[in-house]
Amino acid sequence: ISSKLPNVGTTIFTTMSQLAAETSALNLSQGFPDFDGPDALREAVARHVMAGHNQYAPMTGLPALREQVAVKVASLYGRQVSADAEVTITPGATQGIFCAIHAVIRPGDEVIVFDPCYDSYEPAVELAGGVCVHQALSLPSFAIDWQKLADALTPRTRMIVLNTPHNPSGALIDAADLDRLAELIRDRDIYLLSDEVYEHLVFDGRQHASVLRHDELYQRAFVVSSFGKTYHVTGWKTGYVVAPAALSSELRKVHQYVSFTGVTPLQWALADFMAAHPEHLSELPAFYQAKRDLFCDLLAGSRFSFTRAAGTYFQLADYSAIRPDLDDVAMAEWLTREHGVASIPISVFYQTPPAESRLVRFCFAKREETLRQAAERLCAI
Amino acid sequence: ISSKLPNVGTTIFTTMSQLAAETSALNLSQGFPDFDGPDALREAVARHVMAGHNQYAPMTGLPALREQVAVKVASLYGRQVSADAEVTITPGATQGIFCAIHAVIRPGDEVIVFDPCYDSYEPAVELAGGVCVHQALSLPSFAIDWQKLADALTPRTRMIVLNTPHNPSGALIDAADLDRLAELIRDRDIYLLSDEVYEHLVFDGRQHASVLRHDELYQRAFVVSSFGKTYHVTGWKTGYVVAPAALSSELRKVHQYVSFTGVTPLQWALADFMAAHPEHLSELPAFYQAKRDLFCDLLAGSRFSFTRAAGTYFQLADYSAIRPDLDDVAMAEWLTREHGVASIPISVFYQTPPAESRLVRFCFAKREETLRQAAERLCAI
Ligand SMILES: CSCCC(=O)C(=O)O
Ligand SMILES: CSCCC(=O)C(=O)O
Repeated sequence: ISSKLPNVGTTIFTTMSQLAAETSALNLSQGFPDFDGPDALREAVARHVMAGHNQYAPMTGLPALREQVAVKVASLYGRQVSADAEVTITPGATQGIFCAIHAVIRPGDEVIVFDPCYDSYEPAVELAGGVCVHQALSLPSFAIDWQKLADALTPRTRMIVLNTPHNPSGALIDAADLDRLAELIRDRDIYLLSDEVYEHLVFDGRQHASVLRHDELYQRAFVVSSFGKTYHVTGWKTGYVVAPAALSSELRKVHQYVSFTGVTPLQWALADFMAAHPEHLSELPAFYQAKRDLFCDLLAGSRFSFTRAAGTYFQLADYSAIRPDLDDVAMAEWLTREHGVASIPISVFYQTPPAESRLVRFCFAKREETLRQAAERLCAI
Repeated sequence: ISSKLPNVGTTIFTTMSQLAAETSALNLSQGFPDFDGPDALREAVARHVMAGHNQYAPMTGLPALREQVAVKVASLYGRQVSADAEVTITPGATQGIFCAIHAVIRPGDEVIVFDPCYDSYEPAVELAGGVCVHQALSLPSFAIDWQKLADALTPRTRMIVLNTPHNPSGALIDAADLDRLAELIRDRDIYLLSDEVYEHLVFDGRQHASVLRHDELYQRAFVVSSFGKTYHVTGWKTGYVVAPAALSSELRKVHQYVSFTGVTPLQWALADFMAAHPEHLSELPAFYQAKRDLFCDLLAGSRFSFTRAAGTYFQLADYSAIRPDLDDVAMAEWLTREHGVASIPISVFYQTPPAESRLVRFCFAKREETLRQAAERLCAI
């Protein structure tokens, strides 16, 4: 068999989580919490599974959950979206991303992604017959270079993938960035895929620049988010896509045949919980900011250097003062094996990694005791 | 936006289930039970959700569940498969089908499907850039015409999609069919996608001709099944694909970026239940055969004519003696609106429906009282 994805190996997330398990290292690599989702949310699953909500949900998702998403979008971003026509529940945000790409990308189309970027965009584009055009974010800020973007646009450009808050850097774009983007693509036939799975994890009083806030951009956008990230249950693999009716309709044609629908009892439980606990969302920034600060305060005693993440639950750290001889993949392995802390090297999220990049990513979605123990080990190096 | 899937509308399953809900008809259309999965299985979900099994499962699926699949495959079909290298858990069988197609089909490749066939095959093939070549099953037996299949093979044929037990007809293929197929494709570069989601629903003492029994065919096959169908929990959207290591490796490359992994607590619960209740599988044929016989015995008093389904939980019925003036789509709607029983017209599963087909499909995965009430209504016509 000749591979359609010859460049695809095992994802770095699998590799590092496996290495962490094998070596009993603290796993600050793959992005998931080591604490659990809210009791009331999990109890709701138990209740709905026992109450018999175990058969197919409607193709577009449970109406009650789509309604909760619409309520949230209205209250956070001031946009009225139709739960029926503009919200689609998907089995995970990754699948929302895949379906959005397949809904519009045709053979030969170009998709602009900003490196470093999440590793699922490119294989999804390739399977749709498209080509990813990689543009590196400016260092050390991880900001978009708007002039470079303008230069990269061609008549074949069909989609731009935004990701804010940005994984792995934690950088944010702001409202002015969205305006610049809108101006740039105004007269072009370009869709936007906005990966906003960390939408609620924005710190220091800053605001999430959701594409949902932007009238002009939203008209051509697929906005993807994740219940798994937001409710600390990454293993539930439930996400959603908000897009204007015409785009949602194309997205659903793909979704309908990729998976048909998501898991019923999880959707019931999420709908119940969202209705009963809207405060969960407003408490999230402080919850994760406290973890970021705990971890960073402790890490200040180490030889790593860093700027605090503005969003996400990831913290980049520069290790040039420790092992400048190692590239980041070797460093992540060394840290895991020799010092018992697993991280993610970020060069794997680049087509062309910057020479001399000496950054690894730590996930701070962890209990206080895990963060303390990890920091202690990192400070001892 | 110009559609990549211009011929795709809402699936017939959504359409008929919605119509059934709107008209309060008994819903014998979309294939799902109106009873619940086993108590012990549902309790296991509640237990694992509360015990904190809510973060990402490994990409290929929970090892304990893959192991249970391997145990089942060995005991039912006499094949030793590697849980690590040959079994992949997917978020639903539909997604297993999608990923298998995308793992091997390239632009211009031909995929042979036997009409009437499940409606997800063709859009999946089209999204991969391939072309479906439709071959109608012989009527009234719904058997494969081997000579016609031989004639349909071209150098571009890259895949054949088998489905046994067959939805919507309930027909089975047998071991001799598999031998014929093996002979036909022996010297060709053709993969097999074997949709066996109804593998356990085979009646009257017949045996399921799984491709897993066939050494030669298995070497080029993706065999797909569904926990949702087998454990009466279609809303859990959890299935699996068994394929030789080289094919599983390509399948996983796609799966890794379509969804990454399936839902963790459901996988734990299924693994527990399969280990504790192997008898569930051996009891299934009698359980569903009793439902088929109840429904068919009662329907014998109607003006529908039919041959009992050999497998699946679907029963076809010919209505020519009742409304020969209506095509099957109109008939399904009329039955729902006027007589309170929703069914599925089967012409929608054909590229070119046979002229004068007068068959609708009833799902008999229903409680005795539902089946009695439906039959009563159907007998009153
Ligand atoms: C699907 S595993 C990846 C989890 C994640 O979002 C990350 O670690 O970046
Ligand atoms: C995914 S909805 C379709 C259910 C089913 O398998 C059928 O009714 O044929």
